Amino acid sequence: MTERVLTGDRVTGKLHLGHYVGSLQNRVALQDRYETFILLADVQALTTHFEKPDVIRTHLREIALDYLAVGIDPEKATLFVQSMIPEIAELTVFFSMLVTINTLRHNPTVKAESKADGLDEMTYGFLGYPVSQAADIAFCKATLVPVGEDQLPHLELARKIVRRFNELYKPVLAEPKPMVGDMPRLIGTDGSAKMSKSLGNAIELDCTSEELARKIKRAATDPARVHLGDRGHPDICPIYAYHRAFRAEGAPEIREGCERGTMGCSACKERLTKDLDLLVEPMRERRARYAAKPKEVDAMLAAGTERARGVARETMREVREAMSLDYFG
Amino acid sequence: MTERVLTGDRVTGKLHLGHYVGSLQNRVALQDRYETFILLADVQALTTHFEKPDVIRTHLREIALDYLAVGIDPEKATLFVQSMIPEIAELTVFFSMLVTINTLRHNPTVKAESKADGLDEMTYGFLGYPVSQAADIAFCKATLVPVGEDQLPHLELARKIVRRFNELYKPVLAEPKPMVGDMPRLIGTDGSAKMSKSLGNAIELDCTSEELARKIKRAATDPARVHLGDRGHPDICPIYAYHRAFRAEGAPEIREGCERGTMGCSACKERLTKDLDLLVEPMRERRARYAAKPKEVDAMLAAGTERARGVARETMREVREAMSLDYFG
Repeated sequence: MTERVLTGDRVTGKLHLGHYVGSLQNRVALQDRYETFILLADVQALTTHFEKPDVIRTHLREIALDYLAVGIDPEKATLFVQSMIPEIAELTVFFSMLVTINTLRHNPTVKAESKADGLDEMTYGFLGYPVSQAADIAFCKATLVPVGEDQLPHLELARKIVRRFNELYKPVLAEPKPMVGDMPRLIGTDGSAKMSKSLGNAIELDCTSEELARKIKRAATDPARVHLGDRGHPDICPIYAYHRAFRAEGAPEIREGCERGTMGCSACKERLTKDLDLLVEPMRERRARYAAKPKEVDAMLAAGTERARGVARETMREVREAMSLDYFG
Repeated sequence: MTERVLTGDRVTGKLHLGHYVGSLQNRVALQDRYETFILLADVQALTTHFEKPDVIRTHLREIALDYLAVGIDPEKATLFVQSMIPEIAELTVFFSMLVTINTLRHNPTVKAESKADGLDEMTYGFLGYPVSQAADIAFCKATLVPVGEDQLPHLELARKIVRRFNELYKPVLAEPKPMVGDMPRLIGTDGSAKMSKSLGNAIELDCTSEELARKIKRAATDPARVHLGDRGHPDICPIYAYHRAFRAEGAPEIREGCERGTMGCSACKERLTKDLDLLVEPMRERRARYAAKPKEVDAMLAAGTERARGVARETMREVREAMSLDYFG
């Protein structure tokens, strides 16, 4: 049996190089090996952006373009819109009976959030987003879910919910396995641990050559290195991290030049800019091609969503039967 | 504009005389005055009965028969099954972003439950059932909801959620008004404050003449009254309460006989048995007629559910448009 992969993104902002390195690159490879479902998580985006639904609407199309730009092929992968699959909401409601508040309270993301504001001021929807994630995975019977280490507790909860369902009713749902890759987390252009749009340290996938050059020019480097000739410390420099992430084969030479003080920061940045531009250029082209045909993109999303709904309907037929809620059969 | 009424029952047990006095009788009257939607709340039943879905399956049909037996007319009222309206689950998920844990924690039912077991051990679904109730009301744009005093806080929360939605997005949902009737709460045959199946003090609507006679014979009376001739205290006697609830015009005579000690408990009970049998007999007949045609009952529920889904689809079209989640329009 072919494994089915579920992956996706919350549609709250355009994708950037951090996403490319951390997941998109991997998805392009996965689509050839597995049946791949890619979720545009607009309902999950509501948990934090319910007051700004326009942001979600805009980014739905932008992210679809990002996917197409990096080489995700709608003929191979099923791209679909979460809010257009009512079965996910139904499964979320059924799953909500199988999880206690205590379990959700100990989810690391919820925990981090409740430390800041207290559990009381959290919305009911935010507290429950791991339940909704479990439904995202279970409705399409995904067997593999690519995750970073930090998301393992979410997947563990999804597995627990699925097991509970299968034991309590009938074993109709698939228990998903995590696929922890060695995908590195890309640091931000300011040197902080994570590239993130909200931190303003991201290089977006649709950036122009000029934006790219400007962002790299302004990026942080080893602060101890002031003059050409100073010995640098590449391991604390975002520019070196990018060299390693995007053109690993050239990295040893960069390291040597930096540590010996023979290659200056400007030259190092110019080289990176050139390399990244080579990477991003075909993405820009593909993006522009699709952006010119918005109706085609909509049709592609509609077709993927319809395919996912077919799977959803069949799963819910089995779920209702397992739960004895299949009346008038 | 005709007002639309939403009412219904959790499908966890057969209906009894307490339901008849407290709501069913009133619904039979309402169906002639308003557009009436009656919800068979099987998803809400899951919040407490998720481990016993067979109970829900069985009672769905029993309660449908109870409705028909008391005179609810499927030509006038729309009877529908909650779990077959996916739009309710979708609206529940959207509404869950508009309510904080704090608000739900202060809901009286949730509060009572969390006192016993603590909020932590409560399921996520149980904590959220007032959210799901708000969706039950809002999906069909009900404007009137018959409630007892004790349910007013639930309705207030539903109103709050609807107002929040209308303010945040667009005013597409109807703010429901409570319809607080003077429907009395019927005491149990054991004299405890409430007739309830789980307390074993209920007289079911489908009881036979023999069951009815036996239950009344065994029912509690004024304990101070031992012999005929003893003066009774009708206000603490369930039998007198039933006389008042079911044949008010005969009650003064009963009171007098009891207080003076001229009418014994046996005679008083016999009279009640006769009166109740006259009330229940036509229900038994209607029930038997429908019970013999289960396919017809299923078809009636299917038709009501389909009618409710039509309303649900239209509401969700407006909801998605209001939230800017109407893609591919």
